[in-house]
Amino acid sequence: MADLITRIALEAVVTERGVSTFDRTGHRPLPMESLLDTVGQLAPGLFEAGPRAAVREHAFGGGTAAQALWAATQTVEQDREVHAVHCRFLRHGDTTAPTQIEVTPTQDGRRYTARSVVAEQHGRKILTMDAAFHLPESGWQHQVPTADAPDAEDVPALEDRLLTLSDAGQRWLDHLRNSHPFEFRFVDTLHPILSGECTYPPRLRAWLRSRDPLPSDRFAQACAMVYVSDLFLLSTAMMPHVPVASRDNVARASLDHAVWLHRTPDLDDWHLFDMESTWAGHGRALCGSRIFDRDGRIVATVQQEVMLRQPSEPATD
Amino acid sequence: MADLITRIALEAVVTERGVSTFDRTGHRPLPMESLLDTVGQLAPGLFEAGPRAAVREHAFGGGTAAQALWAATQTVEQDREVHAVHCRFLRHGDTTAPTQIEVTPTQDGRRYTARSVVAEQHGRKILTMDAAFHLPESGWQHQVPTADAPDAEDVPALEDRLLTLSDAGQRWLDHLRNSHPFEFRFVDTLHPILSGECTYPPRLRAWLRSRDPLPSDRFAQACAMVYVSDLFLLSTAMMPHVPVASRDNVARASLDHAVWLHRTPDLDDWHLFDMESTWAGHGRALCGSRIFDRDGRIVATVQQEVMLRQPSEPATD
Repeated sequence: MADLITRIALEAVVTERGVSTFDRTGHRPLPMESLLDTVGQLAPGLFEAGPRAAVREHAFGGGTAAQALWAATQTVEQDREVHAVHCRFLRHGDTTAPTQIEVTPTQDGRRYTARSVVAEQHGRKILTMDAAFHLPESGWQHQVPTADAPDAEDVPALEDRLLTLSDAGQRWLDHLRNSHPFEFRFVDTLHPILSGECTYPPRLRAWLRSRDPLPSDRFAQACAMVYVSDLFLLSTAMMPHVPVASRDNVARASLDHAVWLHRTPDLDDWHLFDMESTWAGHGRALCGSRIFDRDGRIVATVQQEVMLRQPSEPATD
Repeated sequence: MADLITRIALEAVVTERGVSTFDRTGHRPLPMESLLDTVGQLAPGLFEAGPRAAVREHAFGGGTAAQALWAATQTVEQDREVHAVHCRFLRHGDTTAPTQIEVTPTQDGRRYTARSVVAEQHGRKILTMDAAFHLPESGWQHQVPTADAPDAEDVPALEDRLLTLSDAGQRWLDHLRNSHPFEFRFVDTLHPILSGECTYPPRLRAWLRSRDPLPSDRFAQACAMVYVSDLFLLSTAMMPHVPVASRDNVARASLDHAVWLHRTPDLDDWHLFDMESTWAGHGRALCGSRIFDRDGRIVATVQQEVMLRQPSEPATD
């Protein structure tokens, strides 16, 4: 990873698996390694991340959070592991602008370390983060049962289902596939919100893995988890209320995002994301995710509050 | 509520319900109103909270968080509601020392407001907090089913069960009753970790309400919720591993605490706390709580990570 700012050249990045490219249209997903490689240190505690795309659009919050966490890891002893990350998204990021990331030490204990992080664009705060690190130790163990789901290999790839999708569903899916360096397979026979005008209970299960090989670095794996854990939660909250075909007028955004990492993930391999929205009201919703590896071990727990404003409401703030 | 520092006189505070007093031993719970009343403003964005007890011991994290949130509310437009609070506990607080609380604006939007809060004692950070506020609006609604539990009135008070407790259980219970301005009734026939050497699954359900009338102020209710939501979570995580009679050597502490408020609570009345620890490992555990009012409406969701170090491990950091 680069120590100095490397503004990513906005040209094709051909990767080992051959599917992840980032071209001048900005509509190919930047591999996680490149996303992190754009983060360079300007001064002690001060970092800058390069632009992420040539096309100006709202930056994906999980990507901003991954870059902010990566900056924090550069200030922490390398024997630590990331165990918790709490983010607040203050305003939309801009994919074409650099991001200034300030990291402030809040704890430097013998086993626990914490950092407060503030990310800014155009002189305005877009994200605050509390990142917490722990020197691994042994201890008691328990966990919730793993989600009951077929193996990733037994779930058909989306490519085999595309013909059954509505136009709106197809557009949604294409956008996801073209924006993020992760593959995904929905556990349910067909991802229900894609299939038309229906609404469904607020639960969604999906297998996800990195499309490109990730750096062999547990901090990079943690950043990848923070990134990918921001996918589909907002969709889960909308499932009882908004068919995908009617979503264009819904003002929506992530408000916060908290990830507890129970072990270092290996996101080169499939992980099962068991997502549920447990509450909606007042123009907001709370969503959660439990993330398991292929052995059924819980790897992370996620909570995210989102803004969901009905089309009749003005889209302000 | 006082605008200037009012250091609470360390003498009896006789309250309306007659059961909550705070005496020179420091072993009576300070009512919530008094806890908040000690928070006074020194300068714009700078507050100080008075000592909480005459006896030096580790400050209850929920109390520190409630005071920090109260300071943040004093900098926010009064038409807002608290919707999310994320805290990191950096080191133990000292009940006999004042606490300096610095509040920094991070967002002042038309509908959303956020504050970063840092609390210090003896010149060292003890807590960082992200507090988020929202101008109420309407929107879609859903929620998880309410926990299936008997009404608070149908659950015997602990006083009727005390004779069946182990000595260690009695001490634990006495400490809780003497430290916090909340009443509690465990839903299960007898709070299982009190009854001897057994261990149990990591789940606990309890009804809780304020012992003293709370100020008629939704910010004070939110602070009370942040306070009370820190009770019993660590106990829930220990239930599969440590009978109450064997806990003295377990080094333990809350690491973080996140509360999403779905509506303003009325903690003058009973609320059902449905608590579960979903994971333990590496000397840590994750605990969660869903909090319902008597009508079954979800009022808040809580996540907390705790440190739990086995007796064989040195209690460091």
